[in-house]
Amino acid sequence: MGERIDQNLRGSWSGDVGGLPVHALRWLSGRIGLAARRTPAAVDVTAGVSGLSAAAGEALGAVVGDGHVRVDPVSRLGRAGGLSYVDLLRYRGGGELAVPEAVVLPATPEQVVAVLGVCVEHDLAVVPFGGGTSVVGGVAALRGDKAAVVALDLGRLDRLVSVDPVSRIAVLQAGVTAPEAERLLSPHGLTVGHVPQSFERATIGGFAATRSAGQASSGYGRFEDMVEGVRVATPAGEWVLGSAPASAAGPDLKELVVGSEGVFGVITEVSVRVRPRPVVERYEGFVVDGWEAGTEVVRALAQRRVLADVTRLSDEDETEVSLALSGGVKAAGVRAYLKARGVKRPCLLVLGWHAGSEKELRARRAASVAVVRGAVRLGKPMGEAWRHGRFTGPRQRDALLDVGVCVETLETATHWSRLAELRDEVRRALTDALGRSVVMCHLSHAYETGASLYFTVLAAQDADDPVGQWRVAKAAASEAVAGLGTISHHHAVGVDHAPYLEAEIGGLGVEVLAAVKRVLDPTGVLNPGKLIASERFRG
Amino acid sequence: MGERIDQNLRGSWSGDVGGLPVHALRWLSGRIGLAARRTPAAVDVTAGVSGLSAAAGEALGAVVGDGHVRVDPVSRLGRAGGLSYVDLLRYRGGGELAVPEAVVLPATPEQVVAVLGVCVEHDLAVVPFGGGTSVVGGVAALRGDKAAVVALDLGRLDRLVSVDPVSRIAVLQAGVTAPEAERLLSPHGLTVGHVPQSFERATIGGFAATRSAGQASSGYGRFEDMVEGVRVATPAGEWVLGSAPASAAGPDLKELVVGSEGVFGVITEVSVRVRPRPVVERYEGFVVDGWEAGTEVVRALAQRRVLADVTRLSDEDETEVSLALSGGVKAAGVRAYLKARGVKRPCLLVLGWHAGSEKELRARRAASVAVVRGAVRLGKPMGEAWRHGRFTGPRQRDALLDVGVCVETLETATHWSRLAELRDEVRRALTDALGRSVVMCHLSHAYETGASLYFTVLAAQDADDPVGQWRVAKAAASEAVAGLGTISHHHAVGVDHAPYLEAEIGGLGVEVLAAVKRVLDPTGVLNPGKLIASERFRG
Repeated sequence: MGERIDQNLRGSWSGDVGGLPVHALRWLSGRIGLAARRTPAAVDVTAGVSGLSAAAGEALGAVVGDGHVRVDPVSRLGRAGGLSYVDLLRYRGGGELAVPEAVVLPATPEQVVAVLGVCVEHDLAVVPFGGGTSVVGGVAALRGDKAAVVALDLGRLDRLVSVDPVSRIAVLQAGVTAPEAERLLSPHGLTVGHVPQSFERATIGGFAATRSAGQASSGYGRFEDMVEGVRVATPAGEWVLGSAPASAAGPDLKELVVGSEGVFGVITEVSVRVRPRPVVERYEGFVVDGWEAGTEVVRALAQRRVLADVTRLSDEDETEVSLALSGGVKAAGVRAYLKARGVKRPCLLVLGWHAGSEKELRARRAASVAVVRGAVRLGKPMGEAWRHGRFTGPRQRDALLDVGVCVETLETATHWSRLAELRDEVRRALTDALGRSVVMCHLSHAYETGASLYFTVLAAQDADDPVGQWRVAKAAASEAVAGLGTISHHHAVGVDHAPYLEAEIGGLGVEVLAAVKRVLDPTGVLNPGKLIASERFRG
Repeated sequence: MGERIDQNLRGSWSGDVGGLPVHALRWLSGRIGLAARRTPAAVDVTAGVSGLSAAAGEALGAVVGDGHVRVDPVSRLGRAGGLSYVDLLRYRGGGELAVPEAVVLPATPEQVVAVLGVCVEHDLAVVPFGGGTSVVGGVAALRGDKAAVVALDLGRLDRLVSVDPVSRIAVLQAGVTAPEAERLLSPHGLTVGHVPQSFERATIGGFAATRSAGQASSGYGRFEDMVEGVRVATPAGEWVLGSAPASAAGPDLKELVVGSEGVFGVITEVSVRVRPRPVVERYEGFVVDGWEAGTEVVRALAQRRVLADVTRLSDEDETEVSLALSGGVKAAGVRAYLKARGVKRPCLLVLGWHAGSEKELRARRAASVAVVRGAVRLGKPMGEAWRHGRFTGPRQRDALLDVGVCVETLETATHWSRLAELRDEVRRALTDALGRSVVMCHLSHAYETGASLYFTVLAAQDADDPVGQWRVAKAAASEAVAGLGTISHHHAVGVDHAPYLEAEIGGLGVEVLAAVKRVLDPTGVLNPGKLIASERFRG
């Protein structure tokens, strides 16, 4: 039953995966001390025989139709994990891959409720699966104490249920991917405007379940800001929330569902706040001299409430890498241009505006640019370069793994007054753990009270224990984050951050989550091991 | 032990309570068929003997100091209710007044935790008490199944704990009143900007516990939007939440505390997002022809994201009453002016902007006014008239009660596409229940997807059963709201809306609240009877 799994089997990244340009590889080798190019070993990944009982399979088939309970290895391996570095290693044969016994594909919210009923009856753990783009182990096929585990693929819940153009609310099913949501809303002149790096594959349900934040979050808001209501299937029945744009009718229970990562229920439909499609977009590059000056610029943009829809500040290392990777004449030209203007520590700032008219765009741009006065303008080409490459990060990782690079990202957020310390501490933790490495950082989500930090780490892979190498580094970074910021600003908790959640929400917070879980999922079939350790959900 | 309770004993409304002008009274009498002016009967309100046991009193005194456990009738009667019409009637001897056995005044968050411990040990129900401005029974001294009930007055938690001017976060204790918060922040050049009608007395803790929305919510946000973090005392210990401006670390548990109305814990400190104090403010009046046209104007302002900080549209009846109450030459002049401009169904629209500079104000005003093009401008005097009277509503109610008027408000919110239906249905329900009456409505909180509706009701009081008269009308209005909007946009649930909450959040929602309650307040001492019926909290 061995299967060689091509990454392309696991989803639908559009375009080429491609390799790295030679000049980039040369630069990287120099920085992190990369060994000579290795050919990755061809390792078979095995799904094993499905342990789904015949009775359970029949019961599931009776709900969703026989063709929609899949036990073939390709289907099962394709829903065995997400896109973290460790997931990628596992798919290359490094580390153990938890493979679901079956993939179940319901077609309606009612079928999802019925599937959960079957899972309770047959002691099956259920892992809700959207685009499979989790980078924190959120879709790992863990079974907890259940007899078997199935992946609940929401791909057939792919409908635009309704549009209310007056209230600007669209009801979208959970399995609708981000590009498909845009395609469905386009004839109505509407957009969701949610553009995370996982855009090409991620789904509406996944965005809600993980509190996703897109690249244009300064303009369109985080995904939870876009959620007007939710429809949720739970083992205890359906739960529908959201009757008004705002309410004082007790605690906001919608906020308990959003971010619940499939442990309380399966989000089947989301009432999404939508906006008119922008008529014009413009992206521009600026360079600020030094990270501290750059964060002050972004803070001023946020606190004066003139943020661009996309606002993204790279630190010196990330800026250097961007230039190194772009290579050739262009990078040299930019470097000379900046040097001539006395910029010693260039930090790239990309701003992007969407608007309904040229006039509106000009007005908004002028308000932002007034705050960015001291920066060197690189103009539209640098902004467009960023836009062009905005989804390539995940693809480049495969190319980097091919040449023996340990490559991963992590992110956090904190108040402005702690931002510098948080960045320093995380960088130190990563560098101490990994030795010779490149740790880049950018700020891509800004608020009046603080901002996010996003780190990209590159190091030479430990050939003997690449998983262990990253685990040590990730633990060190997570310890550095705890107490200074949130363990995740937009990647969610999954398995990887679960050990750190209690430090953030307190023992009482964990007990509250466990109590909610017992109401909605009393037998604990839903996504065991995610968010908080399964044993905390009992009691 | 009989006590005549003056309303002024119960708080500190600044300025005159005052009476109604003669012309206004004449107009009102004609509209609602008011009987000849009555002198209200002087009814003694009785606190009764405090049932607090000596042991409990000593234990509480050991925590807060002997002078801070008060059992005198004036203290107890002063914390026996809020400011709903029924509360006002009760304070005038109509209907039963639940009076706490004692008033306990802790001075620190730690003392609040210790007080809760004493209450659990001595079987005392605890009603957290801030400004006492609830209009939904939120501070009624109900004891549930406990031996006695104490009011936990947070007035001594009156400190500005810290200010982080870089992150624009101020930590304020729960008992700080809104004006005091502004006074404390003023030297730092900062403001909360939260200005509900209860501004003069309401507290930071109360705002958070009830999801308050202020008159400038379009500019500053609802109070929950201003909450960066909370510190909560519960019988299970302290709970501190909020480490970043935004997070994907699981469900947002802060949103479970905000709006919990004292049933999960006592909010002792709030990390509040603050803003620079505005340098300039400007309020202007406009008149739109007809409610439907008016709501379309406000919807356009909201959806184009150019709302004024204060945005308030009165319907025809409220506009007529405003003119009638202002009386005299001014009203006649406005009527003639509007008639000359062909306005048939005048609806007053007040817009108010706050800004850091004249230039900024002009730019923001221009963006709003471009959308309001079709309206007749009444200019600054009408805007200033609204600002001048913005807190007088609660005071006028006392004057109206004095002359035998049933006067109450209620509010809701829904999506734009259901707004007209919601207003029609609530008006019909109130009019059917009350007969000859004035039902006024305004829209004062607008969002991209919908808006709030605020109703003010005036009718001749049923002299025999004024409480029963209002209960019937309120029930009819609440039934009309259920299914079309939220049972409360900013007044909260308290006792009055508790029967309607399940229709909004579902049976599962109630079970989830009950499960959270059992974790944080296992013996159920906290605010019995509020939010959801006490028996639902067991299970």
